[in-house]
This record gives sequence, C-alpha cells and structure tokens, in this order.
Amino acid sequence: MSKYASLKEEAWAANVEIPLRGLALYTWGNVSAFDPALAVFAIKPSGVPYPDLKAEDMVVVDLEGKVVEGKLNPSSDTPTHMVLYRDFNTKDKTPVRGIIHTHSTYAVAWSQACKSVPLFGTTHADHIQTAVPCTPYLSREAVEKDYELETGNLIVEMFHKGLAGTADRCGAGAPLDPAEVQMALVGGHGPFAWGGNAAKALYNGAVLEEVARMAILTLQINPEAGTLPAYIIDKHYRRKHGPNAYYGQKGSK
Amino acid sequence: MSKYASLKEEAWAANVEIPLRGLALYTWGNVSAFDPALAVFAIKPSGVPYPDLKAEDMVVVDLEGKVVEGKLNPSSDTPTHMVLYRDFNTKDKTPVRGIIHTHSTYAVAWSQACKSVPLFGTTHADHIQTAVPCTPYLSREAVEKDYELETGNLIVEMFHKGLAGTADRCGAGAPLDPAEVQMALVGGHGPFAWGGNAAKALYNGAVLEEVARMAILTLQINPEAGTLPAYIIDKHYRRKHGPNAYYGQKGSK
Amino acid sequence: MSKYASLKEEAWAANVEIPLRGLALYTWGNVSAFDPALAVFAIKPSGVPYPDLKAEDMVVVDLEGKVVEGKLNPSSDTPTHMVLYRDFNTKDKTPVRGIIHTHSTYAVAWSQACKSVPLFGTTHADHIQTAVPCTPYLSREAVEKDYELETGNLIVEMFHKGLAGTADRCGAGAPLDPAEVQMALVGGHGPFAWGGNAAKALYNGAVLEEVARMAILTLQINPEAGTLPAYIIDKHYRRKHGPNAYYGQKGSK
Amino acid sequence: MSKYASLKEEAWAANVEIPLRGLALYTWGNVSAFDPALAVFAIKPSGVPYPDLKAEDMVVVDLEGKVVEGKLNPSSDTPTHMVLYRDFNTKDKTPVRGIIHTHSTYAVAWSQACKSVPLFGTTHADHIQTAVPCTPYLSREAVEKDYELETGNLIVEMFHKGLAGTADRCGAGAPLDPAEVQMALVGGHGPFAWGGNAAKALYNGAVLEEVARMAILTLQINPEAGTLPAYIIDKHYRRKHGPNAYYGQKGSK
Repeated sequence: MSKYASLKEEAWAANVEIPLRGLALYTWGNVSAFDPALAVFAIKPSGVPYPDLKAEDMVVVDLEGKVVEGKLNPSSDTPTHMVLYRDFNTKDKTPVRGIIHTHSTYAVAWSQACKSVPLFGTTHADHIQTAVPCTPYLSREAVEKDYELETGNLIVEMFHKGLAGTADRCGAGAPLDPAEVQMALVGGHGPFAWGGNAAKALYNGAVLEEVARMAILTLQINPEAGTLPAYIIDKHYRRKHGPNAYYGQKGSK
Repeated sequence: MSKYASLKEEAWAANVEIPLRGLALYTWGNVSAFDPALAVFAIKPSGVPYPDLKAEDMVVVDLEGKVVEGKLNPSSDTPTHMVLYRDFNTKDKTPVRGIIHTHSTYAVAWSQACKSVPLFGTTHADHIQTAVPCTPYLSREAVEKDYELETGNLIVEMFHKGLAGTADRCGAGAPLDPAEVQMALVGGHGPFAWGGNAAKALYNGAVLEEVARMAILTLQINPEAGTLPAYIIDKHYRRKHGPNAYYGQKGSK
Repeated sequence: MSKYASLKEEAWAANVEIPLRGLALYTWGNVSAFDPALAVFAIKPSGVPYPDLKAEDMVVVDLEGKVVEGKLNPSSDTPTHMVLYRDFNTKDKTPVRGIIHTHSTYAVAWSQACKSVPLFGTTHADHIQTAVPCTPYLSREAVEKDYELETGNLIVEMFHKGLAGTADRCGAGAPLDPAEVQMALVGGHGPFAWGGNAAKALYNGAVLEEVARMAILTLQINPEAGTLPAYIIDKHYRRKHGPNAYYGQKGSK
Repeated sequence: MSKYASLKEEAWAANVEIPLRGLALYTWGNVSAFDPALAVFAIKPSGVPYPDLKAEDMVVVDLEGKVVEGKLNPSSDTPTHMVLYRDFNTKDKTPVRGIIHTHSTYAVAWSQACKSVPLFGTTHADHIQTAVPCTPYLSREAVEKDYELETGNLIVEMFHKGLAGTADRCGAGAPLDPAEVQMALVGGHGPFAWGGNAAKALYNGAVLEEVARMAILTLQINPEAGTLPAYIIDKHYRRKHGPNAYYGQKGSK
C-alpha cells in the first residue's frame, strides 16, 4: 500500500465535496492536501469529473513540482499550489496543509471586478480580520514566463506587501499572515483558500463564497456601507481563534 | 428521564430544520426553546454540525446563564438569548418562548448595510407592522464588557426606543412590542427572531429571510419604492392576528 | 361520491405543485379550479401546509362566495378568485377556469415596486403581448369595505382601463383581454395568474415568476433596456397561440 | 433498426440533461445532434416535456428542413439549427455537430439587454476569446419572411461581420470563427451554443449561463470593471485549446 494513501484519501474527500457545496461546475475546482514530513502534496488529476474521481487517482507531487506517484496528469493549477505550500510554510510553522481553488460564482465576481471583499460584518470577521485581498492582474511578463507558478508568486507577493499590494489598494501595507488570512482572490481569475488540512481549506472556500455573496448584497442595499468597526472585528475573531477562544467544544478546534 | 426532555426535543427539532430551510451553512445558527414555569431554556451546543445533533445534546440554561443540564458547551450566543427571554417576558406575558439566531444571507446583508428592512408589501405586513428594525453597531464599551450579553441589551434597548433607536433612524419613536415585532437585525451582525415556541421562532427566521430578499429586489426595480400604506398594513396584520383574524382554520393558530 | 370530486382533484394537484415549482414558502399560495356548468370553484383550505393537503380537503364555493362543500375554511383570498371568475367569464366565453395566487419572490418584488413588468424579450412574448400589468395600491375605502373582494375588483378595473390603469401608467389605454393577458400584479401585494384549467394557471404563475426574474436582471445589465419591437412580440405570440400556431404537437394545446 | 438510432440517442441524452443543469423550465430548450456523413440532424420534438422524452421521439431533419424520420413535429426552432449547421460547416471543416437553444435565465437577461457579455475573467477565457456576441433585434422584414430561418441568418451574419455586427457594437470587426466562438446571443430572445457533438453543445450552453451570471455580478460590484488583458485571455485559451494545450488528460479532449 502506498505511503501516500491517507494523504490521497484526504485530498479526494475534499475534492468530491466541491460540487456538493456548490463551489464549481464540471471540473472547475481542485483541492490538494500537504504532508510536511514527506514534503509532498496530493492533488486532483486535471479535467476529471468529480463523480468519476477515486482516491487512488490523486496525483502526488513534491515541492519541485515533480510527480512522485500517480498515472494521471495533475491539475494544471499544480504549480500555484506548490508555490503556496513552499512560501507560506516554514520548517517551524506549516499553517498551509490544504489548498482549494475553484471558480465559485460570487468569489469570481469579486475577482473579475478586481476588488477585495470589504469586511462588512461578523460572518466575515469570524474567519479573517481584513478584507479578502485581491491581487492585480498578473503582468504580461509573468504570464509569458510560467503562468501558474507566477500566479502563486503573485499571491505570495501580495501577502508580503499587505493590502497595499491588492488590486484596489485598500487599507494599509502591513504584511498579511497566511496563518490568519486563509483566503485570497486573483484579479480577473478567482479564489484560492487554504487551512490546516484539506477539509479546512474546503471550508474556507465555502466561507469565502458566502462572504462574497453577502458583500454584493450589502452594497446593493447601501453602496456607502461601512467597514465593521475594528473593535468588533477583533472580538469576533478572538471568539473563534487564539488562546481565549470560546466558540465550539473543548478539543474540537 | 430528564424533566427537560420535551423542551430539549422542541429545541432540537427546530435546530435541525435550520439547514433544511436554507438559513445557515455549517453551524452558523441556533434555536432555543424556553419554559417559563421552569425558568430555563434549551439551546444548541456550540459548534456542533446539525446532522450530528441529538435531542439529548441540547444544553439547558437558566436565566442567570448557568447550565443546569448538559455536558456540552452551550452556543456562544447563549447570553443574547438569555437577555431576550428575561427582558421581553414578564410574569404575566411571556410572548418569547423560542428564539432563533442565524447568519441567513439576505438578513445578514441588511444587517451589514445597517438598514432596517422597509415594509414594502403584504408578505411583510402579514407578519409585522413596522420595518424590521436594525440596531446600530454595538459600542466599544459594550463589546469590551460582555459581548453577547450586550448584544441582547442592544436589541432590548432598541425596542424601548422604538424605530428612532434603529441604525437608520427610520420612523417614529414609539416603543416596539416584542409580542408584535418578533424579529430584529443587529447592525454589522445578523438576524434574531422569536415566537411562541421554537417552531414559530424558526418560522419567523424564515419569514425574515424571505422578506429581506424581496426588499432587496424591490429596491433594484425601484429605488424610490414607497412603504405600503398604513391602512393596508393594518388590514393584513389583522387578517392573521388578533380577535378578528380570519386566516387559517379555527383553533390552528 | 361528490359530484365535485374531479374539480377538487384538479385543484389539489395544482396546489401541491406550488412548492415544487418554488412559488411559495409555507402556505403562501393557493390555486382554484372552476367548473362553469356547475358555477362553482374548488379552492385550497386556508393555512393548511401543502404536504398535509388531500383532494377531499378542497373547499367548493359558488359565485356568491357560499361554501357548497367542505368542512374547512376556504382560503382567505377566496373572494378575489370569485370576482375574477365572475367578471372575466361570460356565458359564451369562460377563459378563466383556474386561478393561482402566490407570494413568489420576483413577482412580489415587482408588485412591491408598483411597476408593471416590461416586455423585454421573447420568453415573455411567448405568453402575453403586453407588460404584466400592476395595479396601484388598493384605496383606503376599498380596504375598509371588503378587502379581498375589492382586490378582485381592482384587477378587473385595471383590465377595463388597460395599461393606463396600471401603477406606473405605462402604455396606452386599450382594455386588456383576460383570455390573452392571463396574469397580473397587485401593487404592494403580489401576483395572480389564470388559465383554461388549474394546471395552466399554475403554469402561468411559474412563467410570471421567471419573466419577473429575467426582467430584474435585464435592468441590472442595462437600465435603458428597450421593449421588444411590436413585430417580434406579435410573431412570438402567434407561434404559440391562435389559428396559425405551430409550436407543439397537433391537438396538444 | 433506424440508421439514425445513435444520432437520436445522442440528441436525446443532451436534451434530458437541460433541466438537470437548470437551463430551462418546462419545454423551453432544445438540443440537436448533426451527422455530416448523412447530412441530417436529430432534434427534440416541439413542446414535449423532458421527462416524457424517449430517444425514438427525436425527429430527424435534413439540411433543407425536410423531416426524414419521426412522427412528431420537430422543434419550432429547427430552421435556426439548420442554418447554423449549413453555414457554419463546410465539407472540410464541420465544427458544429451539436446545437443547443434555451431560455436560460442569465443568458436571456443579456439578450434582453441587447448586450454582448464582456470578457471579464478566466472562466470566460477558458472557453472563448471574445465577448459572447449578441445580435441586434431581427428586422421586421426578416421576421415577416421566415422567422426562425432568419434568426439563423442573423447569427451567421454577425459572425461574418465580427463584433462590429453585434447589438452593442463592441470591439473590432474581424469575422468570428464558429469553431472558436461556440456561443451567441440573439437580441431580445436568448442563447444559442454549439460544439463538436450534442454533449459539448450542452456543456457550452451551461458555460454561457454561468459566465453570463458572473458578468452581471461583476458589474454590480464594479460598473467600470475592465476586460481581461489580451495576454491573459490568450494564455487561458491556449491552456485548454490548440496544439500545446495542457489541461486535462492525454486523449481526453
């Protein structure tokens, strides 16, 4: 039995949930699962419909992008996943152990509008404390060089620059921490999200889609809607995260 | 057998209906059921997915917020429920015997926009005779003091002040009666609704979501849409409520 | 066996389809079926949820509004149905043998906006050749006199006046023919539709909801969207209706 | 057994998927499948509900519009399909072997708005490299001459003129290649899409509906949203199409 069996199972289970959560039509989304000890991730094969997927079809790729197990082509977005695992994790800190990319409708709409999703309410603040940052369009040079890899670099660069590096230049320039901001939009393209495992990446992908939907509706009611005050953002985030979190059951986090 | 068994069953049945009515993703909503004789309410445990819930998991809490039965942590919103049961009921009049809080999409959009939902039509007037009132954001002091408890106080205070106490200061200042206005929005957060039992609270939560959706669409067609004339509001409400109500079957109210 | 059995069956079958077509939550809609020979109609009982309905529960009412068979209260909207059957049918011409009233979301939005649904495209023109007309609000006098009966009169009056009698006074004043325009909106309230039997009334209710939805989206793309040219309206209508209709199979109309 | 059996089976399978993909209510859509060797296409019979359809009900029509097999009337849109098969295919090049026409909600909204769907993002660019072109309204002369046939001619004429021939005159005038641009809108009416077989036509119909929906939402967020830069459009299209395509599995295209 493959030593990657459980990693492939984890990736598979999250991939087949993509259409059940309404996050993609046809094959328009993929999830990967990362094992820091083995330094590989398992990812959806390219172009295979979800109902046909089996756990054994998952493709195992190392951090140089080399396939180490699997007969099928990995997702064409594999280099983007690779860059995020490589650059958002360190030896000491590996917050990114699962990644999702989809073309979910409302998150794509914000991406196409080249706008970060404003933090309008507590549904959003329960998950991240900033706008969902949106990159500018990828440059011509980057597209011509290595498109999917540079898409990863573009996200990483935005996290280094902070919100000043986003498409709509909202907010200040402090770097974003991928352990805290677990979702991003690529301008003109669509959403990426991540988390401590593949299931949490999927969860964050669904959160982003719902938050994106609520934000469009909020602007339809009140184009001048304001950002949630910082003291409420902070409170809601700490309800769910950090040492004094009190949401949920003990040990279930 | 627990003396709270039927109360827990009532709360459980309404909680598991939340996702069936499309009112929450994941664990983003909770219902409680109140027994005025025992002066306790049964509420959803925090962070437990609906499909995993059992009636025996419901947590029984008294009006001081003390858990009197149950092994799990109650919903983190428990103090908000407690305040509403305490302040909206009296010895003689206990209109609030069930409460729902969700992050349903359209009601959240109005909350995030900090706008009360205008009374545009008879679907709304069949249930309440005013705009669905929206509180301002909670103050920094209140958030730092006791967030969930103060969220309850904010709603109660708005009912005392009437619509003049809402985020968008619409209408006059006569106090709102929680027996008649069985729903409210918290600015930047989301909806609360209540009723004569947990099932009616759930019903009012679903009504609020649909009325919120219709109101957004109405504004998209006609940004100058007017409030329904008072004489129609009054008529529709009296079709369903009060001594001369003639909607439904005898004894089914 | 009741001589109304087949009429009740027809009404029942259309009522239980209301939630399947997404046209109403809870009990917010009703269909009736009319028999011109017996001069009675069968209608949903008031406030009974669709899953609980049985054909034998349908209430049979004559054109004076008197219950001639049935133990339950008829829908509170019964007098509106009665007026439409009475005033839109004659001895020689009985185009209205089924009526539906719901609170379907998009049709209600247009009603609440007090706007007739513009005829933007062929989906609409396949069914009616005018805007879907919307009445003004019912007057105070009418509401205080006999609310549901006067709602019927308001629709009838609008058909006599033609589109000049609608809330937004669009178009000219030629009377509308209920045999051709089989749907209407009541300002601040919601949709009514009808047809040659209960199933066709239900169909027209679903058409109206979809056309109402398409029209909102059309305005979001192009607030200056124009009405479909008259020569296309006419062509599309004649594809499906009248002596030279060529849509569908022979004898299936 | 009919020599058209497999063609009818192909058309049938795509037709019954129309409602499953949410592309039409009732009978408001049809798919055909074309066999260039036999020079015929199989198409849905007119007005038959999808659940009642059998493969043997499909009607086989030649390129003069003559029924060569089948007892039922073919779709009233048959002449439009015929024109597209005739004019978009040549002896050497037959890119159009399946066609779909529906009244899917969001694509109809763009048609009714008489606007081509702008190319805002990569979801769109993965499939076509231009706006989804929308024809002007059909002229009075064309409608009076032969409505459905002239609808086909209108689409063909727009492809010859390029985007300068669209309703909103967006972009330049280079002719469009139906092998690359596999979808179009008819002003005031609705969408047509095609592909290398009936299943691919259906797929393109679903793509168009989703792209149309994303584009409306994009404009709601940012009415000034820009077109995706040409170098990204080009890259995304070449990921999936042409000699160096690398999306999917070998031989699965």
